Amino acid sequence: MQHWYFVAALLTILTSSQGILTSLSQTNGKYMYDYATVPFLAEVFKLMVSSVLLWRECRISPSIRMTTDWKSIRLYPIPSVIYLIHNNVQFATLIYVDTSTYQIMGNLKIVTTGILFRIFLRRKLSNLQWMAIILLAIGTTTSQVKGCGEASCNSLFSAPIQGYLLGILSACLSALAGVYTEFLMKKNNDSLYWQNVQLYTFGAIFNMGKLLFDDFSSRFENGPWWQRLFNGYSTTTWMVVLNLGSTGLLVSWLMKYADNIVKVYSTSMAMLLTMVISVYLFNLQPTLQLFLGIIICMMSLHMYFAPPSMLVDLPPAVLKAAPDSLKEICVEQRANS
Amino acid sequence: MQHWYFVAALLTILTSSQGILTSLSQTNGKYMYDYATVPFLAEVFKLMVSSVLLWRECRISPSIRMTTDWKSIRLYPIPSVIYLIHNNVQFATLIYVDTSTYQIMGNLKIVTTGILFRIFLRRKLSNLQWMAIILLAIGTTTSQVKGCGEASCNSLFSAPIQGYLLGILSACLSALAGVYTEFLMKKNNDSLYWQNVQLYTFGAIFNMGKLLFDDFSSRFENGPWWQRLFNGYSTTTWMVVLNLGSTGLLVSWLMKYADNIVKVYSTSMAMLLTMVISVYLFNLQPTLQLFLGIIICMMSLHMYFAPPSMLVDLPPAVLKAAPDSLKEICVEQRANS
Repeated sequence: MQHWYFVAALLTILTSSQGILTSLSQTNGKYMYDYATVPFLAEVFKLMVSSVLLWRECRISPSIRMTTDWKSIRLYPIPSVIYLIHNNVQFATLIYVDTSTYQIMGNLKIVTTGILFRIFLRRKLSNLQWMAIILLAIGTTTSQVKGCGEASCNSLFSAPIQGYLLGILSACLSALAGVYTEFLMKKNNDSLYWQNVQLYTFGAIFNMGKLLFDDFSSRFENGPWWQRLFNGYSTTTWMVVLNLGSTGLLVSWLMKYADNIVKVYSTSMAMLLTMVISVYLFNLQPTLQLFLGIIICMMSLHMYFAPPSMLVDLPPAVLKAAPDSLKEICVEQRANS
Repeated sequence: MQHWYFVAALLTILTSSQGILTSLSQTNGKYMYDYATVPFLAEVFKLMVSSVLLWRECRISPSIRMTTDWKSIRLYPIPSVIYLIHNNVQFATLIYVDTSTYQIMGNLKIVTTGILFRIFLRRKLSNLQWMAIILLAIGTTTSQVKGCGEASCNSLFSAPIQGYLLGILSACLSALAGVYTEFLMKKNNDSLYWQNVQLYTFGAIFNMGKLLFDDFSSRFENGPWWQRLFNGYSTTTWMVVLNLGSTGLLVSWLMKYADNIVKVYSTSMAMLLTMVISVYLFNLQPTLQLFLGIIICMMSLHMYFAPPSMLVDLPPAVLKAAPDSLKEICVEQRANS
């Protein structure tokens, strides 16, 4: 499972397709289908895929690890609960700030993920890796700076303080969900597919609950959700569902075999890739800030993942003289003398 | 001479005052004096200060080092020659590109200075230091990205190719002047003041030549330059002259006792400081890009100058086992066994 960078690259490509597919699934800038049904169907897709893989794994190796006691299972709805709270905080934030400020504040979750990763998962990061994380957030923010040709022009720090506080809370909740999922996936050697089945079962239930809640809110004026589930679905809509489901499966894999920081890099790079593709696809003007943001994020990537010996010049002798090899050298010298 | 960072900080403050003083020296957005006289008088000021300091140094220690043969002296007009060519290239560049694109391209000189510093002065930089230099250029550029409220909106890469090529040439010449001056100041142990006297004598001559050339160009319609030298000078104008002279003296000191990269950091930080002060002084709206640029440059500063052991976590044993101490440990072990 050393090839996490391949999975991370695939996640980058699929996440960046997600934004573009979602745009393409609109007709005249409007959704002809109920967008709230997409995450539900994606959860169902992930559940089906994971179930099939689990069944296959069980047949191949009957000694597969599956913790089935309630003490373990009850931890699996927690990510869904955090996402539910997060969605509501997000909704509240948008009362105070406009969408572009919200988007800018969203980059804060890169930094909060680093902090919670350090606190809750007790993962040590070097000074340089902290700087890389901050630079990643700066880089994605830079790429989103409004250009001089753009219509809406909101000045910095003009929203009420509640908006910013809710934005920070939102970034913390988003990070918490990620860090908690990583904890869950790594806490024992259970089969990834069994963990996924638990995670997505609760995911599907919570999403179903949301659809039902929306129906009650609108007093069933569009009928119950199961009757209009596939209304207005085109091939592109199905691709949006499959794509969202696939990214979820990849994230889950990364949480078990890599970590949250890898995921954060993947999705941040995906955001930049989406912007580059959009320039070509929708014939937009490439901005200087997009170009600068990409370079900043590339440097951040290199700073975080490159081995220290590649970044700073240590005298070769110091590098060789690792504690273990020290005695060997001494023994050799003694033999020679 | 270890306290170069104090000199660098002073240079940052004075360089940033320069822009603000120059703005303040205008009356209704116009210069009431001939701006071309300012660099000339600054050269004269630097020459006077250096002469006095040289005279004092000679009195204190008669064994002062002063190389006076022609082979050495003839190297001192070269920086002035490079600056002369640079000014003309700058003028040609502005035919093809607008001033804001020119300003953005000016950040390229940070990178070209790094490259020429490596090639001509043979100074090795670590991978991380190269990244820091590129980040510094990115940071200063980010701070200059046109905001969405600003009037002039020039799209990226819209100027003719000649403009960009001349911009690159301009950045190379600017870097060459700096790197050459460093070579000149460090090539022997001559007194700094004696080196300055030579440098500024030629500087004053070349600036005088420029004033005379301008007079010929305008067919002396304003009279010769010496008759209108102080015309329209206010106290602020004199402060501009003294400030420009002082920054020159500090740069000269840094070239001898520190290096070009320190100078580049000083002047880049000064640019950001000027922008921050301008926000307060001229009641401008602070932009997100200025804020981002400042963080990027601060990180670059830390990456370049912090000791590697502070940035990456090396096992303490490896750090202690420096090549020299290795033998000692071995000898000790041998004595113990």
